[in-house]
Amino acid sequence: MNLDRRRFLGSAAFGVSAVALSGSLSISSAKGAAEDPLPSWNAGPTKQGLLDFVARTTKAGSRDFVPPAERLAVFDNDGTLWCEQPLYNQLVFALDRVKALADKHPEWKEKEPFKSALANDLKGLAASGERGLIELVMATHAGMTTEEFAQVAKDWLSTAKHPRFSRRYTECVYQPMLELLAFLRSNGFKTYIVTGGGVEFMRVFADEVYGVPPEQVVGSTIKTKYKVRDGKPVLVRLPEVDFIDDKAGKPVAINKFIGRRPVIAVGNSDGDFEMLEYTTSGPGPRLGLIVHHTDAEREYAYDRKSVVGQLDRGLDEAKKRGWLLADMKKDWKRVFPFDK
Amino acid sequence: MNLDRRRFLGSAAFGVSAVALSGSLSISSAKGAAEDPLPSWNAGPTKQGLLDFVARTTKAGSRDFVPPAERLAVFDNDGTLWCEQPLYNQLVFALDRVKALADKHPEWKEKEPFKSALANDLKGLAASGERGLIELVMATHAGMTTEEFAQVAKDWLSTAKHPRFSRRYTECVYQPMLELLAFLRSNGFKTYIVTGGGVEFMRVFADEVYGVPPEQVVGSTIKTKYKVRDGKPVLVRLPEVDFIDDKAGKPVAINKFIGRRPVIAVGNSDGDFEMLEYTTSGPGPRLGLIVHHTDAEREYAYDRKSVVGQLDRGLDEAKKRGWLLADMKKDWKRVFPFDK
Repeated sequence: MNLDRRRFLGSAAFGVSAVALSGSLSISSAKGAAEDPLPSWNAGPTKQGLLDFVARTTKAGSRDFVPPAERLAVFDNDGTLWCEQPLYNQLVFALDRVKALADKHPEWKEKEPFKSALANDLKGLAASGERGLIELVMATHAGMTTEEFAQVAKDWLSTAKHPRFSRRYTECVYQPMLELLAFLRSNGFKTYIVTGGGVEFMRVFADEVYGVPPEQVVGSTIKTKYKVRDGKPVLVRLPEVDFIDDKAGKPVAINKFIGRRPVIAVGNSDGDFEMLEYTTSGPGPRLGLIVHHTDAEREYAYDRKSVVGQLDRGLDEAKKRGWLLADMKKDWKRVFPFDK
Repeated sequence: MNLDRRRFLGSAAFGVSAVALSGSLSISSAKGAAEDPLPSWNAGPTKQGLLDFVARTTKAGSRDFVPPAERLAVFDNDGTLWCEQPLYNQLVFALDRVKALADKHPEWKEKEPFKSALANDLKGLAASGERGLIELVMATHAGMTTEEFAQVAKDWLSTAKHPRFSRRYTECVYQPMLELLAFLRSNGFKTYIVTGGGVEFMRVFADEVYGVPPEQVVGSTIKTKYKVRDGKPVLVRLPEVDFIDDKAGKPVAINKFIGRRPVIAVGNSDGDFEMLEYTTSGPGPRLGLIVHHTDAEREYAYDRKSVVGQLDRGLDEAKKRGWLLADMKKDWKRVFPFDK
C-alpha cells in the first residue's frame, strides 16, 4: 500500500459510530429555498450547469432520466465540504490528542514524532516521514473502543476552534455545498461522503452537519477487533491501517461500499481525480464538479503547488472532461454559514 | 486472519456491481398482506414475537419507540434467506466455473484442488485444505473486471439449478423471510444483508430477489485495483482476500460499512453468533432471530453436527439471550415460494 505524505495527511484518521454533535447549521431560509435552491451560488455557467443537470435527470420522460434508485452523488470532504487549510482538521485533532495524552507518556518529550508534535513543529513532524505520521495517528486513534473514540472526537469537535476563523471546525463548512447537498436530496439523490479522512471521525458529525447518515459515509479505516468485555461486546481499534480512501482508492471504496457507480462526483483536489474520472466515465448523464479555491480574502487561494489539497491534473483536464469548476471567488456569493 | 473451513466455505466468493437478474419472486398477495403481513408463518410465539416487536418499536409514544433513522435490520444469507444445502451455492458456482474454464487450463487435470473439483470429488477437495479452497476461489473469482465477474455470476444464476429442487438457486429462497423483509421495510426498517458470501456475487441478485439494493449488501471481499484501460476506467479483481465477513468479522463489518448498531439481527448458524450478540447487546429494544433447520421433508434438518451451517452455541444460548427461534417445521406454513 502506497502511503505517500499527501495520502496519509489526507487520510490521517479513522473515526467511530453514530454520535451526533450538538449544534447545527441552518441550510437556507424556507423562503429562499422555494425561490432558488442554491441562493449562495452566483448566477453563471456552473450554477446553471448544476440546475440543468438535476432538471434533466429527474424529469419523467426526459431522455436523461435517472431512476431514483440510481441517483447517487459522492462528495469529498476536506476542501470540498469543509475548510482544509492551514492543515487537515483531523491532523490538528491528532496533534491536540498528543498534547492531551502527553502526561501519560513522559517519553514523548524526547521521542519523534511526538517531540515535534508537542512543540508545534510541523517541519520536524514532516521530517519524521510517513512512518512518523502513522505512529502519530495510531497513538491517538487506536487502542480504545469505537465508542470511546467517538466520544473523544465529539468532545474535540465541540470545543476546538479554527485558528483563523475562531469558529468550531464544523462551522467552517461551505454554505453553497450545504445547499447543493440539500438540493440533490430534495430531488431524490442519495448523498454520500467519500473521504480520505477516517470514517469513524467523520461519522461523529456528518449527520448533524451535512445531513449524511453514518451508513452513507465512506472513508479511511483502521482495523478493529470484536471482543466481549465483562459480558459487553465492544470493537477495539487496532494500530493497523485497513484502507486508505484516497486517489485510486476512492473508486475501489465506492465499488466495495456502495456497489454501483455514482451519477455525480464532487471534489477539490487531485486526490479526487480518480473518483471523478470513474463516476463521469459511466454511460448516461454524469456530472463532475471541482471546487477551485481562489478566494484568499474569504477563505484560501491554492491549487497546483499546495501541500494540502493539491489540484493540478484536475485543473488541466476539467474542461476536456466536461467537469464543472466552482471558482470560489466568482461562483460563491457566501462561503461560510457565518458570513454576512 | 483465521480462515477455517467453515469460514472459508461460508464466504467462498466475492461478487460485483449492480446487475439485476431477470425473473423475480412474488412476495405475497396484496390481499393477504393487508390481512396478515406474515401469511407463511404459523401462529405461535415466534410469529407473535416478530409482530409485537415491530408494533412496539414503531408506535409513536411507545416506550420502545425507535426513530426511523435507527431502524436497521441485518440478515445473514446462506441458510437464512436461501437454502445452503447440500453445499453453499457460491461454492457450487466456483466448481462449475472450474469446469467451464478447464479447457483453457489443461494442467488442472493433474493438479489439486482442480483435479478433485473436475471429478466432483468433495472429499478430495476438502483434503486440499484451506489453501486449496482459496486457490479454487481465486482461480474462478479473480483476474477479471468487476463488470465481467457480475456478468458471469448473473449467467450462472439464471441457468444453474438446485440438485434436489430443480429450481434456480434464486428460487430456493424462503418465503417467510421474503415476507419478513417486506414487513420490516413497510415499517420503516432499512434491511441489510450481512453475509459470509462474496459481496459482488450477492449484489447481482439481492435487489431483485430480496429487495435489498447493492449499497445495503455487506459481505466478504477480495481486493480490487483501479485501472484505466483504453481510456475506460475498470476495477480489476485481484487474487487476494480483503475481508472475510463471518463470525467475529460480522460486527466488524457492520461497524465499518453501516456505522451503527442494528436493532434486529437474523441468522441461522454459529457464523452469525457474534452478529446476534453485538446487535442484541445494545441499549433499548433489540431482536435476535435464529432460523432452525428442522424440516428434512420440505428442506433439510441440521444443526449441531452439520459441516455446512453448523448451529451449536446459538441453540444453547438463544433462550438465555432472549433470541427467537424459528423452527422451520413448526413455524413455517410454506418454505419456498414454489411450495403449494
